[in-house]
Amino acid sequence: MLVVMKQSATEEAINRVVETIEAMGYDARPIPGHQRTAIGLVGNDGRVDSARLEGLDGVLEVIAVSHPYKQVSREWKADDTIVTLANGTRIGGSEIAIMAGPCAVENEEQILGVAHTLRGMGATILRGGAFKPRTSPYSFQGLGVEGLELLARAREATGLAIVTEAIDSEGVEIVREYADIIQIGARNMQNYPLLRRAGQSGLPVLLKRGMSATIKELLLAAEYLLAEGNSQVILCERGVRSFDTHTRNLLDLTAIPVVKSLSHLPIIADPSHGTGLRSKVTPMARAAVAAGADGLMIEVHPQPDMALSDGAQSLYPEQFAELMKQIRVIARALDRELVEMPRVAV
Amino acid sequence: MLVVMKQSATEEAINRVVETIEAMGYDARPIPGHQRTAIGLVGNDGRVDSARLEGLDGVLEVIAVSHPYKQVSREWKADDTIVTLANGTRIGGSEIAIMAGPCAVENEEQILGVAHTLRGMGATILRGGAFKPRTSPYSFQGLGVEGLELLARAREATGLAIVTEAIDSEGVEIVREYADIIQIGARNMQNYPLLRRAGQSGLPVLLKRGMSATIKELLLAAEYLLAEGNSQVILCERGVRSFDTHTRNLLDLTAIPVVKSLSHLPIIADPSHGTGLRSKVTPMARAAVAAGADGLMIEVHPQPDMALSDGAQSLYPEQFAELMKQIRVIARALDRELVEMPRVAV
Amino acid sequence: MLVVMKQSATEEAINRVVETIEAMGYDARPIPGHQRTAIGLVGNDGRVDSARLEGLDGVLEVIAVSHPYKQVSREWKADDTIVTLANGTRIGGSEIAIMAGPCAVENEEQILGVAHTLRGMGATILRGGAFKPRTSPYSFQGLGVEGLELLARAREATGLAIVTEAIDSEGVEIVREYADIIQIGARNMQNYPLLRRAGQSGLPVLLKRGMSATIKELLLAAEYLLAEGNSQVILCERGVRSFDTHTRNLLDLTAIPVVKSLSHLPIIADPSHGTGLRSKVTPMARAAVAAGADGLMIEVHPQPDMALSDGAQSLYPEQFAELMKQIRVIARALDRELVEMPRVAV
Amino acid sequence: MLVVMKQSATEEAINRVVETIEAMGYDARPIPGHQRTAIGLVGNDGRVDSARLEGLDGVLEVIAVSHPYKQVSREWKADDTIVTLANGTRIGGSEIAIMAGPCAVENEEQILGVAHTLRGMGATILRGGAFKPRTSPYSFQGLGVEGLELLARAREATGLAIVTEAIDSEGVEIVREYADIIQIGARNMQNYPLLRRAGQSGLPVLLKRGMSATIKELLLAAEYLLAEGNSQVILCERGVRSFDTHTRNLLDLTAIPVVKSLSHLPIIADPSHGTGLRSKVTPMARAAVAAGADGLMIEVHPQPDMALSDGAQSLYPEQFAELMKQIRVIARALDRELVEMPRVAV
Repeated sequence: MLVVMKQSATEEAINRVVETIEAMGYDARPIPGHQRTAIGLVGNDGRVDSARLEGLDGVLEVIAVSHPYKQVSREWKADDTIVTLANGTRIGGSEIAIMAGPCAVENEEQILGVAHTLRGMGATILRGGAFKPRTSPYSFQGLGVEGLELLARAREATGLAIVTEAIDSEGVEIVREYADIIQIGARNMQNYPLLRRAGQSGLPVLLKRGMSATIKELLLAAEYLLAEGNSQVILCERGVRSFDTHTRNLLDLTAIPVVKSLSHLPIIADPSHGTGLRSKVTPMARAAVAAGADGLMIEVHPQPDMALSDGAQSLYPEQFAELMKQIRVIARALDRELVEMPRVAV
Repeated sequence: MLVVMKQSATEEAINRVVETIEAMGYDARPIPGHQRTAIGLVGNDGRVDSARLEGLDGVLEVIAVSHPYKQVSREWKADDTIVTLANGTRIGGSEIAIMAGPCAVENEEQILGVAHTLRGMGATILRGGAFKPRTSPYSFQGLGVEGLELLARAREATGLAIVTEAIDSEGVEIVREYADIIQIGARNMQNYPLLRRAGQSGLPVLLKRGMSATIKELLLAAEYLLAEGNSQVILCERGVRSFDTHTRNLLDLTAIPVVKSLSHLPIIADPSHGTGLRSKVTPMARAAVAAGADGLMIEVHPQPDMALSDGAQSLYPEQFAELMKQIRVIARALDRELVEMPRVAV
Repeated sequence: MLVVMKQSATEEAINRVVETIEAMGYDARPIPGHQRTAIGLVGNDGRVDSARLEGLDGVLEVIAVSHPYKQVSREWKADDTIVTLANGTRIGGSEIAIMAGPCAVENEEQILGVAHTLRGMGATILRGGAFKPRTSPYSFQGLGVEGLELLARAREATGLAIVTEAIDSEGVEIVREYADIIQIGARNMQNYPLLRRAGQSGLPVLLKRGMSATIKELLLAAEYLLAEGNSQVILCERGVRSFDTHTRNLLDLTAIPVVKSLSHLPIIADPSHGTGLRSKVTPMARAAVAAGADGLMIEVHPQPDMALSDGAQSLYPEQFAELMKQIRVIARALDRELVEMPRVAV
Repeated sequence: MLVVMKQSATEEAINRVVETIEAMGYDARPIPGHQRTAIGLVGNDGRVDSARLEGLDGVLEVIAVSHPYKQVSREWKADDTIVTLANGTRIGGSEIAIMAGPCAVENEEQILGVAHTLRGMGATILRGGAFKPRTSPYSFQGLGVEGLELLARAREATGLAIVTEAIDSEGVEIVREYADIIQIGARNMQNYPLLRRAGQSGLPVLLKRGMSATIKELLLAAEYLLAEGNSQVILCERGVRSFDTHTRNLLDLTAIPVVKSLSHLPIIADPSHGTGLRSKVTPMARAAVAAGADGLMIEVHPQPDMALSDGAQSLYPEQFAELMKQIRVIARALDRELVEMPRVAV
């Protein structure tokens, strides 16, 4: 950490900063420059609260030099983390994992039908919401436990792994009974009690980037999971807030190579929420793979215009099949391939 | 709701939209224009999911005409809501309510000392965090129940009302035993299970605007509280995410008159989190009152450079006293005045 | 255009809106709903100033239904515009055009050397700044006319077409003597006198999206060019402003399919400025092609750490060669291929 | 400037950075820490291009410690700059200057009428556009020179000073013949040839903050003016781009105290463009004064619903009179007062 002093800072102000750093238990190292003095704080273990220094007299600004996260960083662990699921899907290695399914589980026919279709097209993970966080209290909020049971039935029938969202601590306890991956949604990225509980669940966690979370904040949220001893974490870029209203969110694909250089955790993309518009999902799914994503999460619905939620961003099954064909080619340009379902009987 | 069709939309596509609207249970009213056709959806009760229409063939865009919130809107209730606390403070009428105190409760001496000081300077509500949501899992997370007990002791000693944050459902149950107002923080603005529980608590709720929440989303989050039967809701502008890093957040004071025209709920401002820098708190607190805020939430710490969190944005007590003097004058320009502590013995 | 009235709007207020619309020379068509009345303005030719209606009594909001741009829209011209250069490069059809070169022209050795290298690797257009708009008045501002002459020499030697920026009206006159494409930079996207002059130049124009321009504003800026009779316009996504500082800008690749659905103009991507970091250029260049870009603009410098500007985002020539290999594969997934230099003697 | 190295950076990479810094003509000072090494660049005169360092092997990030601007900074000149106009108005001292008038000059009756009205209500500077930069090429673009002549006539008749915009270099030459202050609009904040020409004009310049300009970029744009020897510069906050569409822009009032601590230049606010909505102008104008603005620029139109541009954000004259009353009171809370017109015969 570097405390930059104003040009006008007095000797006394500089000493006050040095004393405060030492009182906090760190070493202070003044670095005089031509224009101004800066004071290095040495020995930062990630717990220094810069706010205490920012307000001192004569301080121009405080600049973080070390990163505040630890276990998620590539400096902590150089090798890629690979999350392995019961059905053999590996996320984070050289393969690209495909999660697909409807926004919400609606009924048995819908979810079983789409699961068979998706399995046939090459997905190995089924997505489907049972607990839905909705902006309006008057919107459909999901089938709850009934939805989880339908997902479990679809897994049994197809061999697909299940990823579904938990929106509170009790939900984590229920979801872990049914799912292969617990999803933490964008709105809950900084819901710390929920993160701790998910971290303790023992299951892999899919952590979606918050609406306006910086990459540093995303990694710090993941740090909550790892700090509970859970290193089976998959990050997910799903679009950030922007000033343009042509798309629901602005899919920040550069986050993919940025995260991969800072962290060992796998990162996938969700172009369905990232764009909010069916016709943009296919190009952005292709782009995500080309940018280096370790997987995709895609909304597919057998009858999008009958969907109870997010119909506008759901692909028709035949569009998904076409997309799968295209990303197989793109993956090759990066010396990668799609996860294939192990050829076991189902 | 207005479904705008592309110029190239066929008769068939237009009919498909009309049928879909009718299948959803609403009336469809086509409006031919010179360039294109638009189709009005009449009878929207706030539950229409536009996504279902957006994805249909030939649709250019879907435009919301009614607002999706109800009970929070001024069209639902024309008169200002006034939240009244046990110590007589009224929030939302012609008076301006002042909440002040440290970011976190640290120990008895700190909180009681500052409570007496603030009471003397004219605040009537004491703020102080006992449960702190922190970006890093390694930062100080608050004293928990012990902090709540210290707050209760400060109330007993000074007559100040207490506002403090709950970060999960269990926290709501605990906080309501101690506080006069339950605070829902910015990171939890869309934590719907938490909102429901706070709505059921029977206590007034202070709802902070999320980091990048639109005003519509803020009002919809408040709708979750009102939908549980709790109309004692105070909104709080505390800065939104921006591209400039000179301040921690961008305090959006225009949100104050915007909210007041759309909703009957009171709205206050938190210039401490809104700017993150002590030297900007006083000007922005003055500006918030001038913009029409119903109150202020200000961080004050007896020794900011010893604070366990957010020291850089905490005022020194004497700065707070000076601020109080200035806003008394500004309030007069708007024919308002500061809430005064009822002259009861303490 | 739709004027949405407040629920409380009186008959008189509604009539006032109708009269104002008629006084502006359009038809007014009131549409009563269950909750409120809306008034359609029919016959909008793109010149209606909504501001005049927004401020009227009883008006809740004014919603644009027609798009304010005309000649750039796909509704005006359904077929893709293809910009053809003297050296045979076609931009906007099924091929993908590659523009590459240093940020700034520095000297003859640099620009001729890199031109030969790039030509060998498959680029057909050479980029290089002679007039540089720089944030600080103390930064290197380009070689001016001398830079243009060096670019012309490079074209003569290699057959590459030249794209270079003009930053004022006089600059347009000079640049058109030397370049195949005049570039309008992001900072000048709304410099309307400059746009008009570029529109009159008779040369193809590369128009970069402004730092925080919406897609609508980008298309309206292009409309200035077409309104001068110049339809040889190439749009360029080069990153927008964001709240995260990990990258210089946030490359908005979704803009590519969005623009292609709204407009017939070709759109390319500039991942060098879009990310600002060499290690992110290759993945984002791949992603842009996968998203459907009609071309790429890439900074390549023979010795990036000696560059006079933007060295950090310039690829080494061997990185560019590797990138070209990868995007040839990706293009195939979209049934496209790279523009190849016509096999004429040079 | 501080070059922060990766933990994994080799001795060789560190040496390469040191050598590059020295080759650039500065001193390099390595600062070993517990986790990583950082290298200070000493002697930065504001011309260092960090890009050259960012891309070197082993570099994690480059952090600017000195500010890149000079003459605009308070460290260069500690005392407030005061801009004095021919009619005695002083901007930047203890007084608050009021500029008001219509968005565009429309005809003689309009501009003379409103000028007399505003003068009577206490404004001392008349605003009015003769050259209008418009997002659409089909919108009204101003009366040009005829508009300037009408403004001059209004000055003669009332004693009000004139502020009006120039949008290109030729415009500067024309506007300086008529105006007391040349305005550079938000879209042109980074139009550097225009800034240079305005800097050379000898007239005071009002520089509006760009749509998404950081404060650093605003100050660097002003540096272009001062670098031409013109120190009569007034900055103007007029709202930045945001994700919420309730208002046209997000008025960033915190920019006012931030600019005042970094620079000696005066800064005013334009709540008319900053909000885009008449009903929000008055509260935000009050807030700007309370935040410490040195002046206001307010759109007032005798008949807003007949305005040729921006009618929705123009105050009625009687609203302006009421606003003036309120800000007189608020100014007192800050020990300031409004500029009064010198009592000379007109």
